[in-house]
Amino acid sequence: MKLPPSLDRLVEELSKLPTIGRKTARRLAFNLITEPKANPASLAEALLAADRDLTNCQRCGGLAEADLCLICADPARTGQVILVVEEARNVFTIEESGIFKGQYHVLGGAVSPMRGIGPESLNLESLKSRIAEGGVTELILATNPTLEGEATAHYLTDLFSEQVPQISRIARGMPTGGDLEYADPGTLMKAIEGRTQWG
Amino acid sequence: MKLPPSLDRLVEELSKLPTIGRKTARRLAFNLITEPKANPASLAEALLAADRDLTNCQRCGGLAEADLCLICADPARTGQVILVVEEARNVFTIEESGIFKGQYHVLGGAVSPMRGIGPESLNLESLKSRIAEGGVTELILATNPTLEGEATAHYLTDLFSEQVPQISRIARGMPTGGDLEYADPGTLMKAIEGRTQWG
Repeated sequence: MKLPPSLDRLVEELSKLPTIGRKTARRLAFNLITEPKANPASLAEALLAADRDLTNCQRCGGLAEADLCLICADPARTGQVILVVEEARNVFTIEESGIFKGQYHVLGGAVSPMRGIGPESLNLESLKSRIAEGGVTELILATNPTLEGEATAHYLTDLFSEQVPQISRIARGMPTGGDLEYADPGTLMKAIEGRTQWG
Repeated sequence: MKLPPSLDRLVEELSKLPTIGRKTARRLAFNLITEPKANPASLAEALLAADRDLTNCQRCGGLAEADLCLICADPARTGQVILVVEEARNVFTIEESGIFKGQYHVLGGAVSPMRGIGPESLNLESLKSRIAEGGVTELILATNPTLEGEATAHYLTDLFSEQVPQISRIARGMPTGGDLEYADPGTLMKAIEGRTQWG
């Protein structure tokens, strides 16, 4: 197949993106190059600018364009409650819900004994400092409900239980709009174990 | 939602791509920026290079990095048979099958009376020249089996029937591996109309 070299390279680069296979990459490349409305230079500039400007917040480890991210720099957000997540993108997912008004801490992963990832690879030093500063009344552990996320939550509980008055874990159960027929046994178990008084 | 501005812009640019919604765009942007293995600068360079280097082949209208595309410049490809397609990407799809050894002509679209797109917007002048040069023995019309593609095929047949000895249209029928149960009435009709002697 005789794709022009520069098109071939673009397809190659696009197919490195997650969930973008070669066929999709080719469709995207052709669209970028042949659609009159497409603007590959504008996408390129956005990539370079994001690559250049984004860094990690020195306080929470989330994505920032300055020393502090927009949330840590916001005086209206209280640092008394810290919600701990695995990845930077989790912060924005929770922000979209508008349900949490405290601050975050991004671990940059989770411990995984199976893959040899220990706590030393997580962004923990700054969390230790934040807690040592005092004033943190609750730590909400929002790591994923997976083996790794659970292990990480247990590790953090052990680490901070003496310094933080309240350590909580996000609830497990049936997702809203879910169907019992399609729930896996683990979800069903958590849903029944965690049942609440009704009426 | 407080996405840092440069990340927000990257999401915005990625979500302009076909079939990439805002959620996928955000996942791709986070991957590009936070995955250690991701290389946004390399993708940006590929975009700029493709944007700069790719042009239309002066002969067939396909994608090229020089006056002629790799196929038109290949002395082994005969110009006696010209296969006409709507879009540049169609050329590469057919090339991948390895089944065609002639040359192509890319129309850059199809006529669409409904959307007010007439033949004047198609890349026809160079096809007229190629045919006027003489030596073209067959024109294979491989425009899509849609209303627009059919209308375009009819238009081209009228236009060139006196100059080209043979004008053909790609076959219609059941796709290989298809299931009669899921075939639409139009496909079934074409499959039965176009039936061939068997055994």
